[in-house]
Amino acid sequence: MKLAFVLYPGFTALDLVGPCEVIGRWPDADLRFIATAMNPIRSDLGLTVTPTDTTASLTDPDVIVVPGSSEPLTVTRDQALLGWLRETAPRAKWTASVCSGAGAYAAAGLLEGRVTTTHWGLGSILGALGADVAAGRVVWAGTHVSAAGVSAGIDMALALTARVHGDELARALQLAIEYDPQPPFASGSPEKADASTLRLATRLMLGDRPVRATRRVAAQIASARVRRLLRHFGSSPA
Amino acid sequence: MKLAFVLYPGFTALDLVGPCEVIGRWPDADLRFIATAMNPIRSDLGLTVTPTDTTASLTDPDVIVVPGSSEPLTVTRDQALLGWLRETAPRAKWTASVCSGAGAYAAAGLLEGRVTTTHWGLGSILGALGADVAAGRVVWAGTHVSAAGVSAGIDMALALTARVHGDELARALQLAIEYDPQPPFASGSPEKADASTLRLATRLMLGDRPVRATRRVAAQIASARVRRLLRHFGSSPA
Repeated sequence: MKLAFVLYPGFTALDLVGPCEVIGRWPDADLRFIATAMNPIRSDLGLTVTPTDTTASLTDPDVIVVPGSSEPLTVTRDQALLGWLRETAPRAKWTASVCSGAGAYAAAGLLEGRVTTTHWGLGSILGALGADVAAGRVVWAGTHVSAAGVSAGIDMALALTARVHGDELARALQLAIEYDPQPPFASGSPEKADASTLRLATRLMLGDRPVRATRRVAAQIASARVRRLLRHFGSSPA
Repeated sequence: MKLAFVLYPGFTALDLVGPCEVIGRWPDADLRFIATAMNPIRSDLGLTVTPTDTTASLTDPDVIVVPGSSEPLTVTRDQALLGWLRETAPRAKWTASVCSGAGAYAAAGLLEGRVTTTHWGLGSILGALGADVAAGRVVWAGTHVSAAGVSAGIDMALALTARVHGDELARALQLAIEYDPQPPFASGSPEKADASTLRLATRLMLGDRPVRATRRVAAQIASARVRRLLRHFGSSPA
């Protein structure tokens, strides 16, 4: 099975590697890292990864996984990548997103009538892209599955394994990666975290200049809305 | 703070990226990926990563993280890397391993009098390398911290964050990566998994030819014992 993990500048490494460490161990896994060109691609924190294939050379993936990014709208403007998604996703057996990776499917117009989950801090951006955002760590919509923020990709990949290859393999892979989590705090979701933790996490995610970042996100949301309207009226955005 | 993540051929990507996604978000993080040369390095599943520094150019890391590998003894034979560890680890503020990464510290003679944890399937190999293996997902020995298999690196990195920067930042980073795990099965540790899951996980870890792999591991254990004896008697193994 050709498993295509999508790379783009500023992707979040754990969004990619969490699921990869699970489904990349399927007995029939043919693991590919795909980008619009063969140049190495830098994650948002600075991990540089070399693609194995391009969107031109790999057009028949069986599974597609799109990771998120600290700059969630970058991928939604990547017309070459969105074009590839539009072409290949409907023919793939399974499609998946982690965190803001859901935005790529939404921007490609592939989430019409499908629910998706995303990072707890990104619901409004996904909504602006036209996605029907649902609560949940792992959310299914037919053969499409989405994961919440960053680390949720591991849970998603185990659920996908169970769906594709059965519970027995999923249980064994969970054991192989010793996924018996013992998070030190009860702060992994906004419902569990206290207000000061939520404020600090938001500040960390928005970077050094929260006001500027908030303005940028607001501008991105507005631009996403415009592009969505353009798409609805059949225009092709630049 | 210079955070040195060690790369070597066949490393396990999630061992590296799990902790990286947490401590790489520290406000004072200066994230480096270090190898014995600047060539891109392939993980055991095929993720190819480009180093940012070499063992020759980066000699003053504040934190060192050594990931594990599906071929756990490869790194224990890498004399250039072990030499770098021997030189830099005693001066680093914090040192860490994930999964079989503990073997690098053991082979470098840095675990004398220190307990370590590792992947549930690798205790015997670590023992042969002279390590005092303790049960636990995250095990502290002074300023050295070890994590159990693969995904345990995330728990370790949150514990390290709490130790270095306090609980407030650790809680916020746990929320930023939405680490509110919901593993689909109770099979993440050998104590929880049933016998058939344990058999299948072991087979998946040993690959297609379990008998050959078991022989190879036995040979590696024997060779590790010999090298450990040579080290004790002051000879320099080839």
